Amino acid sequence: MSDTMPARRGIQIGFGRVLRDRRLALGLSQEALAARADLHRNYVGEVERGAKCPSLCAVEALAEALGVRPSELVRDAE
Amino acid sequence: MSDTMPARRGIQIGFGRVLRDRRLALGLSQEALAARADLHRNYVGEVERGAKCPSLCAVEALAEALGVRPSELVRDAE
Repeated sequence: MSDTMPARRGIQIGFGRVLRDRRLALGLSQEALAARADLHRNYVGEVERGAKCPSLCAVEALAEALGVRPSELVRDAE
Repeated sequence: MSDTMPARRGIQIGFGRVLRDRRLALGLSQEALAARADLHRNYVGEVERGAKCPSLCAVEALAEALGVRPSELVRDAE
């Protein structure tokens, strides 16, 4: 049992891919996206690689930076 | 700047309310939901109160435990 890391993490991988695709579609660097979302560039990189499961609050900040709704990113990541 | 806690956390509050409403609609205790989702009961309580922003992986585990899609919970929390 774990507080924050359930064994099943398909959504973590999927979200990373969705985030990267959306960022590139806007022609943004990881650094530019991180600045827009007020997150650290390294954190954005880890999330994109599927190495870190983002908090829902980070998902919200990233969605706003990309001009979409959080639920839209999550739906595409499912 | 913060890695995991952007200043705007409306979704954290909204998600807590949605989670609580869905849990009660199924007649589940926090403990029962936590067991289904393989999360700690205290963690579920903190998320429901809006005191903690859940990871997207925890959102996925909770959604599965509630029989809905993660994006459905997030959409209702927006």
